[in-house]
Amino acid sequence: MRGGFATTLMAFAVAIAAAVARAEDPLPSWNDGAAKQAIVRFVKETTEKGSAKFVPPEERIATFDQDGTLWVEHPMYTQVIYCFDWVKTLAERRPELKSIEPFKTVLSDDREAIAKLSTPDLEKIVAVGVSGMSVDDFRLDVDKWITTAKHPRWGRLYTDLVYQPMLEVMRFFRANGYRTYFVTGGGQDFVRAYAEQVYGVPPEQVVGSAGETKFGYNKAGRPFLTKEPRLLLLDDHAGKPEGIHLMIGRRPRAAFGNSTGDRQMLEYTGAGDGARLMMLVLHDDAEREYAYGPAQGLPDTKVGTFTQALYDEAKQRGWIVISMKKDWKRIFAFEQ
Amino acid sequence: MRGGFATTLMAFAVAIAAAVARAEDPLPSWNDGAAKQAIVRFVKETTEKGSAKFVPPEERIATFDQDGTLWVEHPMYTQVIYCFDWVKTLAERRPELKSIEPFKTVLSDDREAIAKLSTPDLEKIVAVGVSGMSVDDFRLDVDKWITTAKHPRWGRLYTDLVYQPMLEVMRFFRANGYRTYFVTGGGQDFVRAYAEQVYGVPPEQVVGSAGETKFGYNKAGRPFLTKEPRLLLLDDHAGKPEGIHLMIGRRPRAAFGNSTGDRQMLEYTGAGDGARLMMLVLHDDAEREYAYGPAQGLPDTKVGTFTQALYDEAKQRGWIVISMKKDWKRIFAFEQ
Repeated sequence: MRGGFATTLMAFAVAIAAAVARAEDPLPSWNDGAAKQAIVRFVKETTEKGSAKFVPPEERIATFDQDGTLWVEHPMYTQVIYCFDWVKTLAERRPELKSIEPFKTVLSDDREAIAKLSTPDLEKIVAVGVSGMSVDDFRLDVDKWITTAKHPRWGRLYTDLVYQPMLEVMRFFRANGYRTYFVTGGGQDFVRAYAEQVYGVPPEQVVGSAGETKFGYNKAGRPFLTKEPRLLLLDDHAGKPEGIHLMIGRRPRAAFGNSTGDRQMLEYTGAGDGARLMMLVLHDDAEREYAYGPAQGLPDTKVGTFTQALYDEAKQRGWIVISMKKDWKRIFAFEQ
Repeated sequence: MRGGFATTLMAFAVAIAAAVARAEDPLPSWNDGAAKQAIVRFVKETTEKGSAKFVPPEERIATFDQDGTLWVEHPMYTQVIYCFDWVKTLAERRPELKSIEPFKTVLSDDREAIAKLSTPDLEKIVAVGVSGMSVDDFRLDVDKWITTAKHPRWGRLYTDLVYQPMLEVMRFFRANGYRTYFVTGGGQDFVRAYAEQVYGVPPEQVVGSAGETKFGYNKAGRPFLTKEPRLLLLDDHAGKPEGIHLMIGRRPRAAFGNSTGDRQMLEYTGAGDGARLMMLVLHDDAEREYAYGPAQGLPDTKVGTFTQALYDEAKQRGWIVISMKKDWKRIFAFEQ
C-alpha cells in the first residue's frame, strides 16, 4: 500500500508538473522549432520593460489574413460557398439565373466547372449575393448560415476548422497587450458576423474587402443601411497595406499570411523601424489538411496560391515560413 | 494671532473643499443645466452595474464631429486654410495656377471672393493639395503647419482653439470605459496628424473623409503609400453613418455634432435600442466665439450650417441642443 501511495503521489506530482509546463507554454499546439521560438522571442522582446526592442502598448498591432492563415480555405473560400448557397436560394425566385453564367455553372453542382470559375466570376457572384440587402438582414443571414453549413470533407461547421495553433498565437499576442486585427480579402461584413465569437476579434478590428453602403429610411422613418454593389476596398495584394492605412492608420508590428495576396502586407510591415515579425503558413500537410503551393514542389492551386517567388522572397527578407506538417502538433481543436 | 490662524485655517478648509468639489465634477467648464445633467446622467446610467440601461464595455462607442463641435470652424474650416497655404506654395512651382480658377481666387487673398467658393471648388483645392504626396510626407507637412499656423482672430494655433468643455466630455466618457471616435468631414490623414496629442484620440479611432492611397516601391525597393485624388469616403451627411459602419462596424451609443452634416449620424445613433445620447452644439456666442445658424434667428452661414429644420428635428427627437453661450462657463483652455 505504501508503494502504491508513493506511486500515486509521484504520478500526481508528474501530472501537476505537466499541467504547470502547459500553463507556462503559451503555444502548446506548436512543436518546438524556429517558428515557435521566433513568436515567443518577438513577443518577449517587444513587451518587456527595458528591452531595446520595446514597443509601446498603443503601437502593438498584429494583423492576420484569414483564409488559409486562420482557417481552412480549400477546396474553396468559405464566403464563396456561402454565396453559392445564396445563389441557389435566389434562383428559386429568379429562375432566369439558371441560364446566365457564371450562375449557371454554380447551379450545375459540377465541381470541376465550379473550380475553374475565374476571380471576376467569383466577384460577380459575391456582389449579386449581397447587394440590395440591409446590413442587418445580411448579418442575420450569415449568422444562420455559419452556424449550420458544413465543410464537405470533415462534416463540421466552418468555424470548427480554425487552426488551433493560430488561435493560440492570437491569444498570446493579446495577453501581451497586442491588438489582433483581421486583414482579409474576405468581405468585412461577412467576417464581422462571427469574428468576435470565434477569434475574439471585435468588429472594429476587422479590415476586409468592403462594398459601399447606402443610408436610407424605412416606411416608419427608421434609418438603416443597405449593401451596394460598388466595391470600396478590395483588401488583397496591394489593397492590404492600403486597407491597413485606411482603417488602422498605423503600420503593424507583426503580420501573418499564407499566400501571394499577403505579400504586400508583409513587405509594408517589414519596412517599419524596430522589431517586426512576418510569417507565412505553408500548406504542406495533405494528410491532416491540404497540400498546395506551388512553392517547394507542392501541387499548384488557384485558391491561396503560395508561389516559389514568394517563398524565395520570404527567405531573402527573413520572413518565417510555418510548416503545418512540422510546426503544428495539432491543427484543429477537435483533434485529440 | 489666534483669530488670524483660525481665519487661515478656515480659508484653507474652504480651498480644500472647493478643490474636492472640482475634482468630483467631471465637467467643470459646464454651467449646471439640462445639457450637463444629460451627459452626467447618460454616463452614470450606462456604466453603473445593475443599471437597467447598462451598456457592456465593448459597445461603449461615442462619436464626435470635429469642425464646429470640438474646435473653431469659422471663418473657414482649418483644413481648407491648410490647403490654401499649400496652393500658395504650389503656385511658386506652378505659376499657371495663378490664372486657373478656383486657385486664382485663393491666390488673390480676396477674403470676400474666397468666402464665396463653392463646396466643389473647396474639394478640388483639397484634392490638388494632397494627391501625389506620400502618406509620410503629408503627415510631416501637416505636423509642421499645425504647430505654426495661427488663427486670424485670436493669433493662436488652431489646436489652441479646441473647446475645453468638449475635451472634458471626451475625457469623462473615456474615464468610464467609452472609446471616443472622430467622425469628421475633414480628411482622415489630416486629423490623424494631431488627434492623439490634442484630443487623446488614436489614429485607428479617426473616421474621416478618405481618399485612395496607392502602394508602391521607392528606388531602394522600400514600399510606401501615395495619396491619390479619388475619394473613397466623403464622411459628411449620409456618409457619416456609412463611414461608421465601414470603420467601426458598431452603432454608436452617443453622438455629438453641430450642423446639418451631422444629422444622419445622430439619426443613426438614435435608431438603436437602449440608452442613446444625441447632442448638437449651437454657436450662439458672437462675443466669445461666433454666432451662426440660421436656426433660432442666428446669422446664416455656409460653414457649419445649423438650420431651423435641424433644430426642430432635435426638439422632436429628444436630441439636446448645447448653447455655447449659456451652457459653457468657458470656451477655451487659455481663458481664465
